[in-house]
Amino acid sequence: MSNERIIYLPLGGAGEIGMNCYVYGYGAPGEERLIVVDLGVAFPDMDTSPGVDIIFADISWLEKNRDRIEAVFITHAHEDHVGAVGHCFERLGVKVYARAFTANLARQKLAEYGYSEDTVQTCSKWPETVTAGPFTVGFLPISHSIPESSALVIDTPAGRLVHTGDFKLDHEPLVGEAFDPELWAEVSASGVKAMICDSTNVFNEHEGRSESELGPNIEELISAAPQMVVATTFASNVARVKTLADAGVKAGRSICLLGRAMRRMIEAAIETGVLVDFPRVVSPEEAVEIPRENLMLIVTGSQGERRAASAQLSRGKYNGIELKEGDLFLFSSKTIPGNEKEVIRIMNNFSERGVDVVDDAGGKYHVSGHANGPDLARLQDIVQPQIVVPMHGEHRHLRQHVKLAEQKGRTGVLAVNGMMIDLSGNVPTVAEWIEAGRTYLDGSVQIGALDGIVRDRIRMALNGHVLVTVILDEDDEPLGEPWCELRGLPETGRSNAALVEVLEEDLNQFMGRAGDKTLTDDDKLEEGLRRIVRNTSQNEIGKKPEVTVVISRLS
Amino acid sequence: MSNERIIYLPLGGAGEIGMNCYVYGYGAPGEERLIVVDLGVAFPDMDTSPGVDIIFADISWLEKNRDRIEAVFITHAHEDHVGAVGHCFERLGVKVYARAFTANLARQKLAEYGYSEDTVQTCSKWPETVTAGPFTVGFLPISHSIPESSALVIDTPAGRLVHTGDFKLDHEPLVGEAFDPELWAEVSASGVKAMICDSTNVFNEHEGRSESELGPNIEELISAAPQMVVATTFASNVARVKTLADAGVKAGRSICLLGRAMRRMIEAAIETGVLVDFPRVVSPEEAVEIPRENLMLIVTGSQGERRAASAQLSRGKYNGIELKEGDLFLFSSKTIPGNEKEVIRIMNNFSERGVDVVDDAGGKYHVSGHANGPDLARLQDIVQPQIVVPMHGEHRHLRQHVKLAEQKGRTGVLAVNGMMIDLSGNVPTVAEWIEAGRTYLDGSVQIGALDGIVRDRIRMALNGHVLVTVILDEDDEPLGEPWCELRGLPETGRSNAALVEVLEEDLNQFMGRAGDKTLTDDDKLEEGLRRIVRNTSQNEIGKKPEVTVVISRLS
Repeated sequence: MSNERIIYLPLGGAGEIGMNCYVYGYGAPGEERLIVVDLGVAFPDMDTSPGVDIIFADISWLEKNRDRIEAVFITHAHEDHVGAVGHCFERLGVKVYARAFTANLARQKLAEYGYSEDTVQTCSKWPETVTAGPFTVGFLPISHSIPESSALVIDTPAGRLVHTGDFKLDHEPLVGEAFDPELWAEVSASGVKAMICDSTNVFNEHEGRSESELGPNIEELISAAPQMVVATTFASNVARVKTLADAGVKAGRSICLLGRAMRRMIEAAIETGVLVDFPRVVSPEEAVEIPRENLMLIVTGSQGERRAASAQLSRGKYNGIELKEGDLFLFSSKTIPGNEKEVIRIMNNFSERGVDVVDDAGGKYHVSGHANGPDLARLQDIVQPQIVVPMHGEHRHLRQHVKLAEQKGRTGVLAVNGMMIDLSGNVPTVAEWIEAGRTYLDGSVQIGALDGIVRDRIRMALNGHVLVTVILDEDDEPLGEPWCELRGLPETGRSNAALVEVLEEDLNQFMGRAGDKTLTDDDKLEEGLRRIVRNTSQNEIGKKPEVTVVISRLS
Repeated sequence: MSNERIIYLPLGGAGEIGMNCYVYGYGAPGEERLIVVDLGVAFPDMDTSPGVDIIFADISWLEKNRDRIEAVFITHAHEDHVGAVGHCFERLGVKVYARAFTANLARQKLAEYGYSEDTVQTCSKWPETVTAGPFTVGFLPISHSIPESSALVIDTPAGRLVHTGDFKLDHEPLVGEAFDPELWAEVSASGVKAMICDSTNVFNEHEGRSESELGPNIEELISAAPQMVVATTFASNVARVKTLADAGVKAGRSICLLGRAMRRMIEAAIETGVLVDFPRVVSPEEAVEIPRENLMLIVTGSQGERRAASAQLSRGKYNGIELKEGDLFLFSSKTIPGNEKEVIRIMNNFSERGVDVVDDAGGKYHVSGHANGPDLARLQDIVQPQIVVPMHGEHRHLRQHVKLAEQKGRTGVLAVNGMMIDLSGNVPTVAEWIEAGRTYLDGSVQIGALDGIVRDRIRMALNGHVLVTVILDEDDEPLGEPWCELRGLPETGRSNAALVEVLEEDLNQFMGRAGDKTLTDDDKLEEGLRRIVRNTSQNEIGKKPEVTVVISRLS
């Protein structure tokens, strides 16, 4: 029996929805040649990551083993799959492979870091393949909410793996390739060792719906609208943008795209040939000249992003265009958990302007890009994998997906980030635990999620910050009185005197009482001053602030 | 014609869901005698109000006019209606009126501030009334998700108003009074000038469902569960707690209540006689001795609150009880927008423990406590008010509710917080704009939402904080070098040297270059030092931190 093995190691995406990053390896234990599938991002929030720009998987393990990496493959151009290629390229230093549309967008990200076009290799779809060390990898078309989403057919000397990427089973996706069950059956006919499969919508018990269902509903809505119509969706959902635009044109309206991402995506889709027959669009300058009842805007910002077109239109003019009483705003999208408050804020802003807002509460104006429970079961029936490895999901999704596999009599394995799975035998086993985590891009610096930097920010936000300065002379005696500065704290508390004065008074008394042992010892002095600030604050304002003490010695 | 008028002034709740506070007045303009309906709270979040404990309406206008206030009436005991009575009592100094269950909980809140029991007057239900200046007020029973929720029938010399409070039209609410359409018709028969009406669920297009529908579904779920069952809901939803407990008993399980709020609510409901026939409960100590398949816990924390029983059970032991593989956890609740991430975190924690989580995605285990669109229309038909004034809703809810009234041929008025409406004539008019806002309870201090304190906290959280200390001697010459302390910032940036050292180096160079004009002028010096820190940081780490400069002069 061979000493070589196939390993699967999720570093991101197996324990959350977002920041996808999966590793496959083949070879002798510890010497496997590696490929990376997807380098995506997740988005920060004030609760856990204030001030952070974006989040991606901790790739330290890959960096340490960079000489073993053959290539990076990107399944599709969603940010949570391609968003980190630019930020990680220098640390990994290997070529990126993707299909044309995805490659176009990946190159833009690499260009931001000054990398040339040829860092990304454009690949054709299956049956063409790329050889990368012991792997032969093909891009197998599948439908999703972005063009050219592809599963990867990964052939190893020990068998075939299918990594689905994100997908739905849409036979009529309008833009991009339809799901082709015959092709999938053909690819799987020779036997699939493991299918590593999208889990996002596993809890949905209904069969997925096709993009093609939406057009008539949207057209009906637009036709009935008396004034301007504005619709938002993910810019990358090129099929939806086309559905919206086509419906608008059928309802006799000129189409105007607003928002940088919206225009960039449509351009990339046209350039790479995945989008044809997109209606002629008018510029914002032309749009303002068109009667409102003949105009339709398609705009960015379906998740309530503060600087996107939707949010700006809800607050006032954007590109010279302003919404008015009687206009209609359509969210042709689902709100991602965590974004509810921002989306609701926009809805209320529009309400104040008299704009009617329609969302997908009734299920008429949006379909998901992910396979539901019954679709996942159907794909298992087609591919007939020996092992099912759920990926792209929170723990609860992965667990439910394993249950689904087991109900169908298959072997399911619940592998979370950092769990290296040996897929060689009939029963998958845990080969090793790798330290997995999150990296924050913070301004221009990459920091670790557990470095304590963000924790300190959260503490300042919760507790406020008091700065104490004391000066000691050459004889270690206090020179002048302690000085306080407050940030993020009330000016007065219980005693109705200024908090800063109460603090300085108490600190000054402490300095007066302090003996040589304290005054000559920075740590002791700092500790004493901090304690005074925290206790006095607790008493005055009912909270204990963060404290920074600066001791200056003239000696 | 009389010079006197009826006014309605929402100070909280008309523009958001939460922090309800409404004022009614009768008398000559500017001299109206006033009553306050509800003093509720809203809850803070990291995005807008980090570190804040709770939020309530800015009552400055009421405080300024406290000699005109006759009484405070509380419609029901939900936190967003009663939560601020304790915090506001001293500033208003008037007696609080409520029915027995609500009064019981209001007294607990006032007791926290040391106020005696008789600050709250217990009222009987309609047809009994309370006279408060020119007003006669009666508590008209209506169903909701808490016992003894009541509408207020407010009689003035110029006609009758009906303030619905929060409600649903449940003919079989299990605990508390059923909606009684005959009684409501009778009360309305003599004519209702205006109905001020809950708007929370106006967008739901289906008729509301009764609490009584849930019992069989829940019993079925529990009966099929092989191991321990845990259910969570709002503690104040006494009917639901009873529905859960009854279902548990029918399925042969002992019931254990976990969480302080859960026990307190059930005790208050039993003490005040609104809850009868509640099953015998076991203590946590007894519970651990009971076989898992015979036990059901009913616990706090349906919204993912970090310190509530649900969250603690998801992380490990709580009161000696620990959940295991095969246990079932039921969310018999709806997740309030903004709480999704916390609730999902708990679901994933349970998933890691092998606990099966069931929520209300299928609509089987929860019904809302608020009237839906068709129910609001039905109530209008019964009450036949001359004017409909939507309250308790975001702007979009109020606007939709006005539309609903107008569709039924009634006068609707969209009044948001701070808009004083004159209801005297046939057409309501805006009498005045009052400055409305939010007050934050921050530790033990009440601060204004716009005081800048919380804004400073948010800035520190987003940008980090740099402290700069410089000392100048008697001749205004720098003594030693500038000193930096960083909080919430990366240790190193672009140049790979410690950020603190790069900053101190640049600051030192600035001090060396600075002329007398700068060194003798605190404002100029501070401005210069701040600019250096921000520019150098931008260059090194790609972000501009908050800066606090402390200049110490020995002169």
